[in-house]
Amino acid sequence: MTDIFVIGIGAGGADLLTVQAIDALRATDVFLIFDKGEEKAELSELRKQICARYCTEKPYRFVEISVPERDPALPYKQAVAVWHAARAARVADEIAALKARGETGAFLSWGDPSLYDSILRIIDGVRADGAVQFEHTVIPGISSIQILTARHRIALNAIGEPVLFTTGRKLAERFPEGQGNVVVFLDGGDGLASLRGRAGEIFWGAYLGTADEVTHAGPIDTVLDSILEQRQACRARKGWIMDVYLIRPPQRA
Amino acid sequence: MTDIFVIGIGAGGADLLTVQAIDALRATDVFLIFDKGEEKAELSELRKQICARYCTEKPYRFVEISVPERDPALPYKQAVAVWHAARAARVADEIAALKARGETGAFLSWGDPSLYDSILRIIDGVRADGAVQFEHTVIPGISSIQILTARHRIALNAIGEPVLFTTGRKLAERFPEGQGNVVVFLDGGDGLASLRGRAGEIFWGAYLGTADEVTHAGPIDTVLDSILEQRQACRARKGWIMDVYLIRPPQRA
Ligand SMILES: C[S@@+](CC[C@H](N)C(=O)[O-])C[C@H]1O[C@@H](n2cnc3c(N)ncnc32)[C@H](O)[C@@H]1O
Ligand SMILES: C[S@@+](CC[C@H](N)C(=O)[O-])C[C@H]1O[C@@H](n2cnc3c(N)ncnc32)[C@H](O)[C@@H]1O
Repeated sequence: MTDIFVIGIGAGGADLLTVQAIDALRATDVFLIFDKGEEKAELSELRKQICARYCTEKPYRFVEISVPERDPALPYKQAVAVWHAARAARVADEIAALKARGETGAFLSWGDPSLYDSILRIIDGVRADGAVQFEHTVIPGISSIQILTARHRIALNAIGEPVLFTTGRKLAERFPEGQGNVVVFLDGGDGLASLRGRAGEIFWGAYLGTADEVTHAGPIDTVLDSILEQRQACRARKGWIMDVYLIRPPQRA
Repeated sequence: MTDIFVIGIGAGGADLLTVQAIDALRATDVFLIFDKGEEKAELSELRKQICARYCTEKPYRFVEISVPERDPALPYKQAVAVWHAARAARVADEIAALKARGETGAFLSWGDPSLYDSILRIIDGVRADGAVQFEHTVIPGISSIQILTARHRIALNAIGEPVLFTTGRKLAERFPEGQGNVVVFLDGGDGLASLRGRAGEIFWGAYLGTADEVTHAGPIDTVLDSILEQRQACRARKGWIMDVYLIRPPQRA
């Protein structure tokens, strides 16, 4: 008995959903959506299209959970804590309302819920608060890095070797030497720029799985500038970008 | 126009397939299967069940690609090279035969094709040989680590932190300090044993997504022995095991 599903919907089009995810969508009465501002409007549209495509058997609705901006008058850490508490309270209220009506809720998570997504931590916070009792079930989804490797038709790892997943910020701080291939999420651009002069290959992709998909790959010294240019052009055109890449350092002998 | 699909079928039951994967299954005439010996008989059965469930519109068949054992009379590296060449030649022959008949072939990859799977490298080898020209398309699948995190309802990463994917062998050699959470595939048991005395939490699972699924989690010092016992009992009962785990080192202040 699940009160809340957390459904990984894949990081691209509607055909990335698993049968399990579609079953969970169809069992859902209320989709809980966080209002995350402009750049996500398109992704929020995609979520609605996914529901429209698969949830054809019974009615469902969307409930938007919007939480006031962080208070700029407070010190940063305190403002974040206040904001988290407000959000947890809103989620708890919605879950309590669902349970009272005997309905099932769901959060739709972009890609896979386990990768650089805060939803599972938010739910743990609500559960720890204890204001409402509930059960939740997590459904895995195809993450952006899996679309990237599929498009480039490459393995994530060299044979028997490790792979490090990291962020653009961490990469720009220091390159993780000797950890095998490196996958970079959440890069504002500094991570890519920090690769200048480095040996190895890069496999890059933006808006993977969507109509705007772009990919590019090659030796870092040959393709980096062209990736940085494409990245800027994409962002200028759409107003936002999501991109992910894999770096394959030179093989040691 | 694709001659060959490489289809990630997920690392568990038939409901882990994506819509994209099902479309590719349905477009396939011939499923190419590597004969990998006893312990995989059950997984090969699962593959056949998946085809039976989804490929209901047109006929299809299985072709087994079996390659003679590595020759024990040759030095190891040479034996492996000979064996790889024989396998590539067999695959090239099958692809040539498919193309001659205008058929579409597919390899079914357990989990996601990009993770610790040799199929994409085998195909690159066949392509590099040049004996047959073809196009292949890769379809991502839900990997075992994603089922693991879904079951435990946890994120792979700590907020903004890296995650290292590695193997049991590498883990047993040396623990990757300071790389964030650590995910371990392909452990013969040495990796788990090497964790004794280490601080942190472990999230473990075996036969994930199948009827035999087992999971266990907790502080390493509390649950490690019980995981090692369960692992041994599972392996004794079924004759083989597939397990994967995530280690969450203690948070630094
Ligand atoms: C907040 S994280 C969420 C990741 C997501 N849970 C997943 O499984 O891919 C967002 C980051 O994921 C990557 N990403 C997500 N979707 C993407 C897509 N369709 N194409 C390229 N990168 C994507 C980008 O690195 C982006 O900055
Ligand atoms: C050859 S690798 C293939 C991995 C696969 N491509 C994936 O995406 O999960 C096999 C290893 O994957 C892990 N594995 C695969 N399926 C699993 C399952 N259902 N439950 C637990 N571990 C699994 C185990 O670590 C096993 O040793």
